Amino acid sequence: MSTHVGPVDVDALRARLDRATAAASIAGVDALLIAPGSDLRYLIGAGGSSFERLTCLVLPVGGTPVLVVPKLEQPGYAGVPTDELGVEMAPWVDGEDPYALVKRAVTGSRTAVSDMMPALHTLRLRDVVGPDQVLTGPVLRELRMRKDAAEVAALRKAGAAIDRVHARMAEWLRPGRTEAEVGADIAAAIVAEGHTAADFVIVGSGPNGASPHHDVSDRVIEAGDVVVVDIGGPVAEGYNSDSTRTYVIGEPRHDDVWDTYAVLQAAQRAAVEAVRPGVTCSAVDAAAREIIADAGFGEFFVHRTGHGIGLDVHEEPYIVGGNDLPLEPGMAFSVEPGIYLPGRWGARIEDIVVATEDGAESVNHRPHDLVVLPA
Amino acid sequence: MSTHVGPVDVDALRARLDRATAAASIAGVDALLIAPGSDLRYLIGAGGSSFERLTCLVLPVGGTPVLVVPKLEQPGYAGVPTDELGVEMAPWVDGEDPYALVKRAVTGSRTAVSDMMPALHTLRLRDVVGPDQVLTGPVLRELRMRKDAAEVAALRKAGAAIDRVHARMAEWLRPGRTEAEVGADIAAAIVAEGHTAADFVIVGSGPNGASPHHDVSDRVIEAGDVVVVDIGGPVAEGYNSDSTRTYVIGEPRHDDVWDTYAVLQAAQRAAVEAVRPGVTCSAVDAAAREIIADAGFGEFFVHRTGHGIGLDVHEEPYIVGGNDLPLEPGMAFSVEPGIYLPGRWGARIEDIVVATEDGAESVNHRPHDLVVLPA
Repeated sequence: MSTHVGPVDVDALRARLDRATAAASIAGVDALLIAPGSDLRYLIGAGGSSFERLTCLVLPVGGTPVLVVPKLEQPGYAGVPTDELGVEMAPWVDGEDPYALVKRAVTGSRTAVSDMMPALHTLRLRDVVGPDQVLTGPVLRELRMRKDAAEVAALRKAGAAIDRVHARMAEWLRPGRTEAEVGADIAAAIVAEGHTAADFVIVGSGPNGASPHHDVSDRVIEAGDVVVVDIGGPVAEGYNSDSTRTYVIGEPRHDDVWDTYAVLQAAQRAAVEAVRPGVTCSAVDAAAREIIADAGFGEFFVHRTGHGIGLDVHEEPYIVGGNDLPLEPGMAFSVEPGIYLPGRWGARIEDIVVATEDGAESVNHRPHDLVVLPA
Repeated sequence: MSTHVGPVDVDALRARLDRATAAASIAGVDALLIAPGSDLRYLIGAGGSSFERLTCLVLPVGGTPVLVVPKLEQPGYAGVPTDELGVEMAPWVDGEDPYALVKRAVTGSRTAVSDMMPALHTLRLRDVVGPDQVLTGPVLRELRMRKDAAEVAALRKAGAAIDRVHARMAEWLRPGRTEAEVGADIAAAIVAEGHTAADFVIVGSGPNGASPHHDVSDRVIEAGDVVVVDIGGPVAEGYNSDSTRTYVIGEPRHDDVWDTYAVLQAAQRAAVEAVRPGVTCSAVDAAAREIIADAGFGEFFVHRTGHGIGLDVHEEPYIVGGNDLPLEPGMAFSVEPGIYLPGRWGARIEDIVVATEDGAESVNHRPHDLVVLPA
């Protein structure tokens, strides 16, 4: 229920609004309709929170931006410099029709709606404003996936914070404790080390590590377990960390761990080394995938190599086969190949990197080795 | 990222799936397309979690239910009794087209999509399956807003848990502390007293109490402050608590507090007393609103009287003017009138009640008086 106003410069916000409108014009839409979430935070510095009551930033091409907002949530936007941004507030109370307020602010009827806008609002806007709806994603991703210096600084801050959590893993990850107990300690440390929340905590021990999206369970960690720890959350600026390291409790139970892990490590390094302007996302994915496939583990790398990251944990650009987008300086994304051996064990190495003029900067700096913790 | 399988009886789930399909047929749609969230949890016992990768339960009228799910999230549904429910799994991997899997499972082209389905998927389903889309809300609310005995028991459990938190308020709500500090303690207590998470914590002290959706701030609580505390979260069964009490630190600073609060208390009581089968939601709203308006505070009661509650904190039925829905036994909702005096102070009293055969059962049992805490 909270609305955060980020520490973003007013000039930067005004420039983003202008560029969003220009991009909308180029995309041939008459207005962007922005729902609460990271797009709204990117554009006005506050992300909002409402679900069933419509909050919508209307950005008409060639018109005045209007923030349609439930009156009782208006105080949450008190920190938004609406006057300096030239944004008009259109509060509404229960019983009024907020969709009519949107229609009034839009000239034309071809609109782009936020990727995350709930169908509850998407379909009503379709009925009131018009059925010619496309997604804002392709419009806004052109802005959001190219991070400016302040955004990269926020990603570095988030990366350093999650590195500090991984550095302390031996405090919590011990035999005899459940994944859930370890996860609770990690969650507290994520906040203690500088995040505003623990957004996700995956502790996949033993066979659970072979399920990439396992979170935590009541499984008791034992000596010999390989353990995948994938953690992250936002810092105050709203930008997210996301880092995975793989640990082993004493000597690994399975005798294929060291050799297989070496393949993974080479694959992660190769993908990072492939990053430079002009290289496509799919080429980065292929760099990791080829090494894993050549070693005979192709069928056990069951997900894409990475995802963009910023105000959202998952955003453009996606590092996946078929994505021919060429990288540009300022694009930030995870490089996180994994090998998952069903019923046995799994491993993943994940850093967030930012494409630079001539390569990649990693915001994570923990070693990539399989980390041996006391049994 | 977690997928929870609730402790719901398989027979109850099967009956819900059958009733959902029957309701879809009556509503004239060919299939329900259910996104992750509370609708999915209601129907199969697991709510899922994915955003940009499509997860969708396809419930065709007269066909086999199909769960389209990213392969890497499939383990999260391991607890769902798909065989007993007759649900077919359709996993997909990055690079495949999940929308085509949905189309294959649908006969006909008129679909109802989840109210919370992101536009990212709604518009792609429109393009692939067909543009004749309506919302599942009107279909599923007929099921979800009538709680069965197990659901009412879960709401009672949640109510008792949040009552225990309010009972401990004197431990935390003291002069010299910030709202944020108090809120953090309350959040920890919400979990400690039996919730799986603290979903929201509003601590609105002094003038902040006059903003109904204020959450917490760095304002330091002082003697004489009236403080609105509105808190809740889910219990393991997935059902939510939501309860507001208003506190005062010593003697109230303003001399209109006691008389005004007495009006609010009478309004809340009148609304609860109005609840019985056949009475409309709008009549319950009016019962509270009339008392507040008659006392001259009509313009300071700026929101509806209540909202339904269950697997969602806000769901049908909404207790709002214009909603002519007649109440039925098993409907559960908040009764939470408030009076908000801008720049000065505010107050709200909120209980969750369940309509019974002849009135209302409150699941909250803390006294409704303005609670005086030590200054």
